[in-house]
Order: sequence, then structure tokens, then C-alpha cells
Amino acid sequence: MGGGPLKDKILVAIPGKEPTEIIKHLEKKFPDIEITFVSPAPDFTFKDSKNLPISIFKDKTILVTFFSLPPTPEDAPSLDWIHFFSAGTNHVVDHPIYKDTDITLTTSSGVHGPQIAEWVIGTALAHSHNLYNLYERQKEHKWKEEGRRYVVHDLVKQRLGVLGYGSIGRQVARLAKALGMDVIAYTATPKDTPEKRADNGYIVPGTGDPDGEIPSKWYSGLGKEDLHEFLKQDIDILVLTLPLTDDTRHMISTPEFEILSRKHTFISNISRGAIIDQPAMIAALEKGLIRGAAVDVTDPEPLPDDDPLWSAPNTIVTPHVSGNASSYIERAFGVLELNLEKRQKGEPLVNVVNRRRGY
Amino acid sequence: MGGGPLKDKILVAIPGKEPTEIIKHLEKKFPDIEITFVSPAPDFTFKDSKNLPISIFKDKTILVTFFSLPPTPEDAPSLDWIHFFSAGTNHVVDHPIYKDTDITLTTSSGVHGPQIAEWVIGTALAHSHNLYNLYERQKEHKWKEEGRRYVVHDLVKQRLGVLGYGSIGRQVARLAKALGMDVIAYTATPKDTPEKRADNGYIVPGTGDPDGEIPSKWYSGLGKEDLHEFLKQDIDILVLTLPLTDDTRHMISTPEFEILSRKHTFISNISRGAIIDQPAMIAALEKGLIRGAAVDVTDPEPLPDDDPLWSAPNTIVTPHVSGNASSYIERAFGVLELNLEKRQKGEPLVNVVNRRRGY
Ligand SMILES: NC(=O)c1ccc[n+]([C@@H]2O[C@H](COP(=O)([O-])OP(=O)(O)OC[C@H]3O[C@@H](n4cnc5c(N)ncnc54)[C@H](OP(=O)(O)O)[C@@H]3O)[C@@H](O)[C@H]2O)c1
Ligand SMILES: NC(=O)c1ccc[n+]([C@@H]2O[C@H](COP(=O)([O-])OP(=O)(O)OC[C@H]3O[C@@H](n4cnc5c(N)ncnc54)[C@H](OP(=O)(O)O)[C@@H]3O)[C@@H](O)[C@H]2O)c1
Repeated sequence: MGGGPLKDKILVAIPGKEPTEIIKHLEKKFPDIEITFVSPAPDFTFKDSKNLPISIFKDKTILVTFFSLPPTPEDAPSLDWIHFFSAGTNHVVDHPIYKDTDITLTTSSGVHGPQIAEWVIGTALAHSHNLYNLYERQKEHKWKEEGRRYVVHDLVKQRLGVLGYGSIGRQVARLAKALGMDVIAYTATPKDTPEKRADNGYIVPGTGDPDGEIPSKWYSGLGKEDLHEFLKQDIDILVLTLPLTDDTRHMISTPEFEILSRKHTFISNISRGAIIDQPAMIAALEKGLIRGAAVDVTDPEPLPDDDPLWSAPNTIVTPHVSGNASSYIERAFGVLELNLEKRQKGEPLVNVVNRRRGY
Repeated sequence: MGGGPLKDKILVAIPGKEPTEIIKHLEKKFPDIEITFVSPAPDFTFKDSKNLPISIFKDKTILVTFFSLPPTPEDAPSLDWIHFFSAGTNHVVDHPIYKDTDITLTTSSGVHGPQIAEWVIGTALAHSHNLYNLYERQKEHKWKEEGRRYVVHDLVKQRLGVLGYGSIGRQVARLAKALGMDVIAYTATPKDTPEKRADNGYIVPGTGDPDGEIPSKWYSGLGKEDLHEFLKQDIDILVLTLPLTDDTRHMISTPEFEILSRKHTFISNISRGAIIDQPAMIAALEKGLIRGAAVDVTDPEPLPDDDPLWSAPNTIVTPHVSGNASSYIERAFGVLELNLEKRQKGEPLVNVVNRRRGY
């Protein structure tokens, strides 16, 4: 892609109402691009894109969407870039555009850091500060449970293990550091230089760990042995902030809970339910091997009414809501805007999906 | 107080079991001091000290306690320093030792920062992330409330107002900054130089804002006008982290809630219940003037069963537990140890109570 003015035709196909202010702003900033807005789900029910006319994709060079892809690559012969408003692309890996084309795919990874890190720390504190127990007392108008002292173990000097040190994990780390915690990180690829430790993706200004300066120690690898070495590091809170891929499916199972039981680790999962072997986690919770768990993602979703996870001890389950922030769409357009600038200047885009790696 | 070896006789009168490890450590570090331990409440019910023999105070030069004072100054003629394990001294302001002597009083202000800041942020996030609503859904094994989208307004770019920028307020500020918030501070005395902005009290290592670098703007004063100027600064979350004194009693009342209603501020109180005019707050909550409230302290305590605060809308009430951390005693001894070092070197102690100011 060369620099210079953009002659692009962009299709923005996202649920809900047209964000007219933002689109006006982009049209003003990039006068040569043409933006078409279409809502695949005006009522904001996340269904698929079957109700979009196929012809709408025909002349577009850029598609901006969560999930509304043209049925086949042939339906969008001019398309050379899809910007996803989702953080991951695992919902489209079986689509021919993903499998059989070289169309550049970028994600909105990075926009979820603040709200999801808030969820991780909020639920961890709700657990450690007995907030649900105190809430039940409040409902009864009861000052204190007889004889109970409500002493908390605050997080100073406790250790956070971040499994997947990307945009979300880095913001969790930032909060943990402010709380006085020690942070260690695990990634797929080794981070043995300052360049590799830096965050190359989109970052909400003022958040995250852009230079990778927070972790006191880094671990990496794709094998069980590497993972186990990391899990053995006396982790008090383990947060899963890595994509679901063939490598990560059921990555945390019985042997891993066995290791975590030494420090009675609290586990927090906001990535995808299937990264954890859920029955193994329920068993670990029931046996008291781990302190507790907070999961915003389950396997499957929605979690069936009769799933034992709902009432596993010391467990917080929420219905995949941690990423829903009122600023979401604005931030996802922020990534698009940054990448339109880079495309204009002929610079490499941020948040490009590496199909081989799978995220 | 001159430097040199300490010939002090210390009475440690705190509830619970003798902390033998810590006392051994102090005796080793300060070989010339003599430490006597006595528990006014071995079962850890915080009663008064009536069950301590008065004679025990007679020859002591230093008293270390929460509330166990000799009945009169004459009962402890050698006493020249009392180190309180509490953060404040408002529970002893009517005692003759406070009113009629110059005995140095120090507090353990500073040891509460981490756990209380966790409570402040934890309850604020529980509110903004709908955690109690989601917890009710979990109890029903229900994935989502029909039609509800659970979108949060995360804290990035929101503003925290810290009323009382002391040891606790600074740690709340540190967390807020990590969350991407803007922080403004209010203090009794102006902080117009770097020296004045620094925290001169005890700080749990790795926490707080030692140099006062976090606030983007500082406000101060003891008058209503100064206070109102601060409250008008579009504050999203207002945290009360200042002592209860004659100046601060009912400091936040109807006119202040009126001002806060412009931004629909969330209010968090961990200091003392009477700083807020509680009926005025309940009215503000019921009228929806403010987003909500989280209070760990009420007026009176315990809060009576029939108090309307228990069921005020969007309100979290906890029974004065935010300061209870398992590391509490260890940290309070940390302040004592630091001050014993300073006393030995002839340096000024930290956390000295200014009787005129009242804290
Ligand atoms: N709950 C929600 O609402 C929600 C919302 C958004 C996202 N998510 C989930 O959260 C995940 C993380 O998001 P993000 O934006 O933080 O991602 P990101 O910035 O792409 O970071 C991913 C991190 O995971 C690491 N990783 C990848 N595969 C790994 C493996 N096999 N073993 C160990 N580490 C591995 C990566 O290592 P390298 O640095 O070596 O590449 C990277 O550090 C997303 O993939 C998505 O599934 C959930
Ligand atoms: N909930 C609990 O379990 C719990 C536990 C511990 C403490 N507390 C309460 O929390 C309070 C704060 O503790 P801390 O350790 O952070 O105190 P601190 O370090 O002494 O700081 C107090 C701050 O309040 C300011 N202040 C005092 N009077 C004021 C006034 N009239 N107007 C405005 N600001 C005023 C001071 O201003 P200057 O800097 O100008 O002096 C200072 O910045 C304690 O007094 C105690 O009541 C509650």
C-alpha cells in the first residue's frame, strides 16, 4: 500500500444506530474516502449478516465490522482490508476469507483493556473483601455476622501471574502494580529484548504497560513444561488473557490445578471459556484446591441452567459482559482512525492478524 | 529526646494473642528497651481497658495501644510517648492525657492505605460493573436478565476527587491513576510547594503517592467556599479520606449534595460516618441526585436495623471493616519500629498527632 490520499470505499457494518458524529469526523479527516454505513442488526441482537444484501460488498475496499463478512471472497473482489471491531478473530477462522485469501485483517484488540481489567480487579476484590457476604448482610439490615471479623488479606506483596501479556493483561498488570503486587508474565514468544517487551498494538492512552516495564520476570513458550515452570512461581492470582487457539484449548486442566493448589491460587478468566477444562476447574473448586475463580467466559455460552459451575464454591460467573463499555464503539473507531492514518502514510498497520499464529 | 541507646520501658497493650515473633525482633534490634505485653481483650472483643491493673502503667515510658490508656496522667508518671495502633485519635480526645498533657502521641496512620483503597475501588467497581445484580443472576443460574445489556462506563478519563489527601487518599489516587482517571485533591492546608505536597507520614512501601505527584490540581481550605469550589470540579467519584473533627462534622450536607448532583457524583466514605449528614445523603440517593454511595462508616455505628440507609438506592453499606487487614498488626508495629529508630537517632517521629489541629 502506497501513501497519499485514500480513495477507499469503506463499508461500516456494525449493529445498532449509525454513529454519525464519528463518521462525520472521519470523512472530514480523510476527505477522499467514501463511507457507507449499514446496520446488520439495528436492534443490536448479535445475529449474523444474512440480512445484508450481498451487492453491498461489491465495490468496497475496506470492511469495518464485528462479524458481517461477504459469504465468499468473490462477493467482495476489491476488498483488501477488514477491520474487526472484535478483539479476536476466532469466530471467523473457518470463513474462506480467513482461510483462502491474503486480505489484511486487523482487530480492535486494545480497546478492551480498561473495562476488562476493571472487571478482573473488581471481581478479585469482591472475592477477597467478602463483598457478596456483606451485601447479603446489608439486605438483612444486619451490621455484622455474629462472631465474624471480616479480615482481608490485602494484595500488597501478593503475586499476579498474567497468562498472555497482551493489551488486556498489561492493563491488569498496571492495576496490580498500583495495588502493590508483584507481576510476572507469560507469553507465546520470548520477550528477551526491550523491543519485544513493548506493546505494538493499539493502547488506550494512559493505560497498559506500553514498554513492558511492569513484570519482574518473564516466561514464555508453547509447551506444557514452559507453562508449568510459570505456574510454579507462587502465583496468588492467575489471570487468563490470551486468545483461544489450538495451543490454548484446555491449557488449564487437572495437572495445572494440581500445581496451582500449592499456593491456593485464585483464577480469573476473561478470554474464552474453553481455555480452561471447566469440569477440572469445578473439581478443583469443590476440593478447595484453589481460593476461588472469577469467569466472564464459560464453555459453552450461554452456560446451561443446570451446569455445576453456577454454584461451584467461591466462584463468580458473569455472562461475557466484561468487555462491554459505553466507550467501546468510539475506541474501536479510534483503532480504525489510527490505521487509516498509517495506511495513508504507507506505514504498517497496528493489530494485524497473523493467520499462521491464529490471532 | 536525645539520641543513643533506648532505656525505655514499653507497654504493649493490644487485644488478641501476644505477637511473640515481632516482639522478639524488636528486643533484638533495640537491646536496651524492655517490652511488656498485656492483652486487654484476649478474645479480641474491642472493649475498654478496665480489666488492666492500673499499676501496670506506673513505670512505663512508652505505651503502644489502640484504646487502653491509664485512667489519669498521674497513673503513668514516666510516660512520654503513646503510639496508637489506630489511625486516628478521635476516640481519646476527651481523655485527660489528650487534653491536659504534652505526652507525644503518634498514630498508625498509613497502615490502612492498601486495604482501604482496595475497598474503595472494589466497591466503586462493584457498583459500576453491576456485580450485585450479576450475582443475583448467578444465584438463579440465569445467564442474562432479559433484554439487559450490562454496558459499563469504565473509569478512563473520569475524575476522582479526594477529600483529605493523606495516607489513604493517596493510595486511592494511585489506583485511580492506574485506572486512567484524573485525580484532584483537597486538603486542610495549602500544598503550594513540593515539600508540602510530599507525604510525611508512614507509607507502606510501594504504595501511595509519596511525592504528591498524582493530582492534576490541588485545592485546600477550611471554609465552605473553598470546599464548594472543589466540589464543583466535575467529580465522578468523591472519596472522603479525612479525619472527623469539629471542622469536618457534617461537612457534606444538603448544599454539597446539590453541587454534586450536577455531575451525579458517586460518593465513597471510609473515614467516619458523621462527616456526612446522613439523612441528607439518603435524601440525595432517593431523589437520584447522586449515582450511588459506598460507606464503610455510618452514623451511628452499629447502624440500627431500621435505619433507612440500609435500603437507600444504589448504596453499599459495610460494617466498618475496610481497615481490617491480616497484615494490620505487623504494619502497625512497622510504624513503631520506624519511630523507635528515629527516637534513638534523636530525629522527629512520624505520625505525630497535632492536638490543636485535632489529628
Ligand atoms: N471477555 C470479553 O469480553 C473479551 C473481550 C475482548 C477480548 N477477550 C479475549 O481476550 C483475549 C486477549 O485479548 P488481548 O487484546 O489482550 O490480546 P493480545 O493483545 O493479542 O495479547 C495476547 C497475548 O497472549 C499471548 N499468547 C497467545 N498465544 C499464547 C499461547 N499459546 N501461550 C501463551 N501465551 C499466548 C500472546 O503472546 P505473544 O506476545 O508472544 O504473541 C500475547 O501476549 C482475546 O484473544 C479474546 O479472546 C475477551
Ligand atoms: N474505615 C476504617 O476502617 C478507617 C481506618 C483508618 C482510618 N479511617 C479514617 O480515615 C481518616 C483518614 O486517614 P489517613 O490515614 O488517610 O489520614 P491522614 O494521613 O492524616 O490524612 C488526612 C488528610 O485529611 C486532610 N484534612 C484534615 N482536616 C481537613 C479539613 N477540615 N478539610 C479538608 N481536609 C482535611 C488533611 O489535610 P492536611 O494535609 O492539610 O493536614 C490530610 O490531607 C482517619 O482520620 C480515620 O478517621 C477509617
